[in-house]
Parts: sequence; structure tokens; C-alpha cells
Amino acid sequence: MKAEDPQTDAKAPRTARGERTRRAILDAAAAEFGEKGFHEGSISGITRRAGCALGSFYTYFDTKDAVFRALVTDMSAQVRDYVGPRIAAAPDQISAEREGLLSFLEFARAHKEIYRIIDEAEFVDQAAYRSHYETTVDRITRRLRAAADRGEVRDDITEVHAWAIMGMNVFLGLRYGVWDESETPVEVARIANDMLARGIAP
Amino acid sequence: MKAEDPQTDAKAPRTARGERTRRAILDAAAAEFGEKGFHEGSISGITRRAGCALGSFYTYFDTKDAVFRALVTDMSAQVRDYVGPRIAAAPDQISAEREGLLSFLEFARAHKEIYRIIDEAEFVDQAAYRSHYETTVDRITRRLRAAADRGEVRDDITEVHAWAIMGMNVFLGLRYGVWDESETPVEVARIANDMLARGIAP
Repeated sequence: MKAEDPQTDAKAPRTARGERTRRAILDAAAAEFGEKGFHEGSISGITRRAGCALGSFYTYFDTKDAVFRALVTDMSAQVRDYVGPRIAAAPDQISAEREGLLSFLEFARAHKEIYRIIDEAEFVDQAAYRSHYETTVDRITRRLRAAADRGEVRDDITEVHAWAIMGMNVFLGLRYGVWDESETPVEVARIANDMLARGIAP
Repeated sequence: MKAEDPQTDAKAPRTARGERTRRAILDAAAAEFGEKGFHEGSISGITRRAGCALGSFYTYFDTKDAVFRALVTDMSAQVRDYVGPRIAAAPDQISAEREGLLSFLEFARAHKEIYRIIDEAEFVDQAAYRSHYETTVDRITRRLRAAADRGEVRDDITEVHAWAIMGMNVFLGLRYGVWDESETPVEVARIANDMLARGIAP
């Protein structure tokens, strides 16, 4: 995540206009890599989609690897920013976990390229791949431990529970978000949450 | 799966010796693709590892794509054959699910290349990738529905439960089987099964 920190990244945009250009490049990279994959995707394909000059690309990224790595971090953050407020607004932790899955299913349907990009990171940038999942598990572990302190879930919550819950959500998102929309996200989240609720009840 | 059926596959071995050669080629392919990935892996690398002539390779497989596709089907079957008897021997369905996860964690530790190979199928052979997971989910759904009929688990089990359970197991296998062996498989399986047991209890 450090490379994304404006404080430590010499290539981070310094103006609002620069921020918009960098955003357009990342969105274009998501479309390019989502459609063609990393190896077939190209910097010229990204700048064409973004409608910007090659020079603008190099203002913000050094290489195709660099924009791919930034994209994985960015998609990870986009999920967090979409799902986070829904989790925070829930009245209790069981509802929060349901809202987390429901909003993730919605996100996956609207951004079907996310699986292809994150999964390809396993081969292109193993560190970014692990970091995406480890960061997600850290968030789940912390919110469940806090809920355990409030007596809302069982008090023996560990990282093993968090890896299990993330795995559930990842595969439900792939199956019911990306591959096939025959079930509604609300119904999938209801069924999975009913099972989880009993599993992590105090 | 049909291409793997000796009845319909013109290239299937007809002798025990031929079966051993094909087995050696698949094991060599697992090592080659597991270490180098599909794109960097080569047929000559596979035959060198298998200690067989290039002609023997082409007796059983037409292309690098064909051996990769056969390998995905083969690893899927290897997991099923390792895990299946442990599940079948368990005294009840909750213990069966624990044995299923425990034996999968053992398998993942002994065959760390499985994740890289199955996951790369998403990019090399999407149909083989989906088939691996859909076949696994079918098995889980069928065994849980049978258990529901016996009154051992809740009677409203659907495919959504099966996708959730498979997702749990896949990510626990990646984290505690492949990435890091600091937790024992028995302890990981105990924690996850305690959560699942409550979640799917009648």
C-alpha cells in the first residue's frame, strides 16, 4: 500500500486535474486488463481508452507492471470504500456481515472485471495478490473482534474465522455476482448470512 | 470430463504400461506448470521431467493446451479421490465436513502446485476452471442434501450453502495449506468445523 501513499510516491498527482487523469488511466487499465488480460493488454490500449497522451501515462506510471500493481491496490480500495459504509451503518454485527456480502455481490455485478484482475495478480504480482487478501482478512478479524467485545458474536473469533468468511464471500461473488445472475443478491446474502449468523453467534 | 473417458478418447492408454507413461507425463506436467506457469512451461520440459521421449508425449496429448486441460481434470479427480474416502468413512455429516477440510488441507500441503494450476486455468481454459468448481459444488450439494434427508443437517440446504462451504475450504487451504504452515491442519479444521456445524445444524 505504501506506493499508493502520496507522501512517499514521487509520481502521485499534485493537482485535482492530475488526480482525474490518474483516475481515468486506472479505469481504462481495469477495462483493458479485464478484457485482454495482463499479457495481451498494452499501455497504448490503456491510453487510447483513457483518451490521454502516452506522456500523461508516464507522468503517473513507469511501466505496465506498475499500472497493474496500482490497479490491484485501487480495486481492493474500491471494494473497501463501497462495502465499508454499508457495514458501518448496520445496527449489529450479524446484519453488518449480511450487508457486507450483499454490497460485495452488487459490486461484483457492476465490476465483473475485478475477479480476472485480482486473480491474475497471483501470476503477475504475487505480493499484491497476497496483500489484497491479507488486508481484507485483517479488516474482517478486527471488526469481528470488536463485535465479540460488545458481546454480539462468539468470543473465540480468530483469523481462521475471517479467512473462512472471506472465502465464502469470494466464491459467492464469483458464482452469483460474475458468472450468473439468476439468484438475487438479497436472497444469496440472506441464505449465507443465516448460516453464518448461527455459526458465529455468542 | 468426457475427453478423459477411455471409451471416447482415442488417445487414452490401452495397456498398463501406457497408463503408467500417461501418469508420469501428468505428474511431470504438474511440476512443470506449477513451477513455471503455463506460458513459460514447455512440452520438452515435461518430457525431460517425465524421462520419456517426445513421441510418447504425442501418443497421449496433441498440444500443450491438451495436457494442461487434462492436468486440471486430473488434479480435480486427485482431490476427490483423496478427500472422498475420508468423508465417506465419517460417522455423521458434521464430522464428514471436518474430515473433508482436514484432508484437503493435508492434500494442499503435499501438492502446493494445485492452486497455481487450477487458478491459471481461469486464464488458459475457462471451461476447465468452471468445471472444477461446479463439479465440487455438485458433490457438496448432493452429500448435504442426503444428510438433510437423514436429519443430520438443516433441511433447507441449497447450492448457495455449497458454494459458501467450498469457498471457505479453498481459502483455508490457500492460507493454511500453501502459504503458511504455522497452524496445524487439525486445529484449522476444528475451528472452521465448529462454526460450520452450528451454521448447518438441523
